[in-house]
Amino acid sequence: MKIAVLGYGTVGKGVYEMIMRTEGLETGPVLVLPAECTEDFMVTDIRYILEDGSVDLVVEAMGGVEPAGSFCRDVLLAGKHLVTSNKAMVAEYGIELAEIARKREKGFLFSAACGGGVPYLHNLSIAKESDRILSLSGILNGTTNFILDAMQENGSSFEEALAEAKALGYAEADPSADLSGMDSFRKILLACAVTYGKQPCLAADVEGICDLTADDVEVIKERGAAVRLIASGGLNDDGSIYAFVEPKLIFKGMERSVRRNFNCASYKGENSGLITLFGQGAGRYPTASAVLRDITGIAEGKLGMMPEGCEKTGEINGSVQNYFVRCMSEDSNGFHVKEVWKKHNGTVSFITDAQTVEEMHKKAEQIRKEGRRIFFAAVE
Amino acid sequence: MKIAVLGYGTVGKGVYEMIMRTEGLETGPVLVLPAECTEDFMVTDIRYILEDGSVDLVVEAMGGVEPAGSFCRDVLLAGKHLVTSNKAMVAEYGIELAEIARKREKGFLFSAACGGGVPYLHNLSIAKESDRILSLSGILNGTTNFILDAMQENGSSFEEALAEAKALGYAEADPSADLSGMDSFRKILLACAVTYGKQPCLAADVEGICDLTADDVEVIKERGAAVRLIASGGLNDDGSIYAFVEPKLIFKGMERSVRRNFNCASYKGENSGLITLFGQGAGRYPTASAVLRDITGIAEGKLGMMPEGCEKTGEINGSVQNYFVRCMSEDSNGFHVKEVWKKHNGTVSFITDAQTVEEMHKKAEQIRKEGRRIFFAAVE
Repeated sequence: MKIAVLGYGTVGKGVYEMIMRTEGLETGPVLVLPAECTEDFMVTDIRYILEDGSVDLVVEAMGGVEPAGSFCRDVLLAGKHLVTSNKAMVAEYGIELAEIARKREKGFLFSAACGGGVPYLHNLSIAKESDRILSLSGILNGTTNFILDAMQENGSSFEEALAEAKALGYAEADPSADLSGMDSFRKILLACAVTYGKQPCLAADVEGICDLTADDVEVIKERGAAVRLIASGGLNDDGSIYAFVEPKLIFKGMERSVRRNFNCASYKGENSGLITLFGQGAGRYPTASAVLRDITGIAEGKLGMMPEGCEKTGEINGSVQNYFVRCMSEDSNGFHVKEVWKKHNGTVSFITDAQTVEEMHKKAEQIRKEGRRIFFAAVE
Repeated sequence: MKIAVLGYGTVGKGVYEMIMRTEGLETGPVLVLPAECTEDFMVTDIRYILEDGSVDLVVEAMGGVEPAGSFCRDVLLAGKHLVTSNKAMVAEYGIELAEIARKREKGFLFSAACGGGVPYLHNLSIAKESDRILSLSGILNGTTNFILDAMQENGSSFEEALAEAKALGYAEADPSADLSGMDSFRKILLACAVTYGKQPCLAADVEGICDLTADDVEVIKERGAAVRLIASGGLNDDGSIYAFVEPKLIFKGMERSVRRNFNCASYKGENSGLITLFGQGAGRYPTASAVLRDITGIAEGKLGMMPEGCEKTGEINGSVQNYFVRCMSEDSNGFHVKEVWKKHNGTVSFITDAQTVEEMHKKAEQIRKEGRRIFFAAVE
C-alpha cells in the first residue's frame, strides 16, 4: 500500500517515518508549502498526489479547516482512502467526507483526531455495535491538563504554568483553542458523532480554564479536590444528545490521577459499565501511532467510523449539577448559594445548589458581558 | 446469526439475555447439565448443538478445562464459529483451537477471558499490527484487588476482606486460583500469546497475596504505598519473553487508583507510549458485553486474535527490581538488605537491593519449603 502525506509538521513527519519502518507500507509524495520543499519526495501541488495512480491512501496532517477539507474531498473523489488527524476539519466536513467515502467504497478514518494515541474513537465504534453507550467523558486536552496539574501540584500561577507548557512544547504559540475548551469540545463532538450518529453544534456550552487563578486552586485544594477540564457527552432520556466542556472539581475520580499532559477518555456502556482509557493525547509518535492503526485498519477492511446518516444536531444540556463559583460578591446574588467557601477582596467563592449546565453557562456569559470575571467548575 | 451457548451460569445467562436483546442475533439451544434442564431452549447433549445446521456460532461459558476444551474443538470441527470466556481452557487449548479455526476459516475469539469487560486483548491485537508492543502489565484479578483495597482502606485483616468479597459475590466459593495469582497469570499468558505469538508456561514465577497480613499493610501504608497484585509480561532484549505475577508496592502509579474489584490493563507501545484501560474485569454483564463484542466482530469478519504459528515457550524473568520482604529474622540473611522497615516479634520487614524476579521467587519458595512464612512485593 502506497501512502501520500499532506503536511510535514509534527504529525506528518512522524507518520512518514513510521510508514518507512512498516513492512507492507510504502511512502509516496508528501505535500508541503513551496518554501518547505527541501527533499525529493516533497511536492507543492496536490494534483501530483491526486493524479498519481500508484497512491492508495492519503494521510492528511496539515491542520486547519481549509485547504485541508477541500484536499480531503478531492482525495476521496480521486478514489483514494483517507486518514486524518485533523479534528477541526472533521468537525466541519466529516459527515460529507464519510458520505463520499461510502459511495466510492473507500476508507475514511480519523482516530488521531480525538485522544491522540488513546484509541478512544476506535473503541467507541466497536463498543456501540454490541452495547448501548450511555455517556462519554474525558480529559481530552493535554495542554490544559498540564497547566491544571502544574497549578495544583506546584502552586504555579496560570501564567507560569502556561509559560512552562510552552517551553516544553506542550502548548502551541497560540493556545487559545486549548485554553477556551474548544479543542476539547471538537473532540467530544467527534466522539458523539461516532457513537450516536449525531454531531453536536459548535456554539455550545464550552467553558475553559482562562479564568482560573492560583487563589481558586488554593481554595479548592484546601477542600481536598483538584480541578480538571472535562468534556462530556451522551444521550438524554428523550433521545437527544448533550455535549459540553467545563472545569470540574474532582475529589476521588480517576481523572485526578491524570497527570501532566496525559489524556483519559471514558465511556459508560449499559452492559460493559464504565471503561476508561488513559494515554498520551498528543505528541509526534503517539498521534502517528493512531494514524498507523487507521492505515492498518483500512488495509484489513475497516473502512469507516462515522455512522451512515450521521447528522448535525442541537444539544440539550439540561442535566443538573452543583457548581463551584468564584465571582464578585455582587454577582453571587444571581445564584442559589449552598455553602460559602471563601470571601476575599470583594470576591466570594461558594458551592451552588444544583442547576442545569445551560443555566450555569448562561449566567457566566452574562456576568462577563458586563465586564466582570467569574470562574466556575462542576462539583463531582 | 444463530448462537448456541454452552453453560448457563453467570456469564452464559448474561450472554443469552443479551443475544435476545440484540437485533440481528438469534438464540439457539443452551447446553446445561441434566439437573439444570428446566427450559425448552435447554439441551443436555452437545450433539444437539453440533448437528444443528442452523447454529452459526457457539459461545462457550462453562468454565474449566474439560469437557469445555473437547466441546470447543468439536464446535470448530462442525464448522461453527467459537467465542469463549474461559481462560483456563484457552490457556490449555487455545493454540490448537486457533489452528483448527484458521483451517476451517471460522472465527475464534476470547476477549472475555482476559480483563472481563475491559477490551484488553482486542486492543492488543489491533495495536500490535502497527506498533511494537514493548511490555504488558495490569491488575487482572478483581477478587484480589477487592481484598487488597479493603485491607488498605479499612484496615481489614486478610480473612475479613476475603469474607466480605465472598459476601458480595466478588470471590468464588473456592478462591484459590485468584488468591494464588494463577488467574492473573493465565490472563497475562493470553495477552502474551495474542501480542507476541509466544505463550509462556504455567509453571512460572507466580506469587499471590495469601501471605499478606494486616501488619504488612500497616507498615507499607506508613511509607505511603499501597499493595496491588500486578501481572507483567513483555519482550526481553534477546527476543524471549518474560511473564510473572507478584504483589507490588505502588507509590504514585495509576494502579493505585484501581479500587474495589476493578481491573486495569496497560501496554507500552514503542510509538503509542503507555496506554491503560480501566473497567470491570468480571461480573455478568461486563463479561457478557465482551462476548457480544466478539460475536459482532466475527459477524463483521474479524475471525481471530491468536497469531498464526503461536507457540508455547519458556519465559525468562531476568529483570531486576527492589523488593519489600517480610520474613523471619533468620531468613533475612539470605537477602541483600538495603533498608530495614520494621522488626517485630521475630519477623523483620525490609527493602532488598535489586535482584531478579526469578531469584526472589526462588528464595521465597525455599523458605516456604522449610515451613516458614514470607511475604514479598516488588517496589515501584
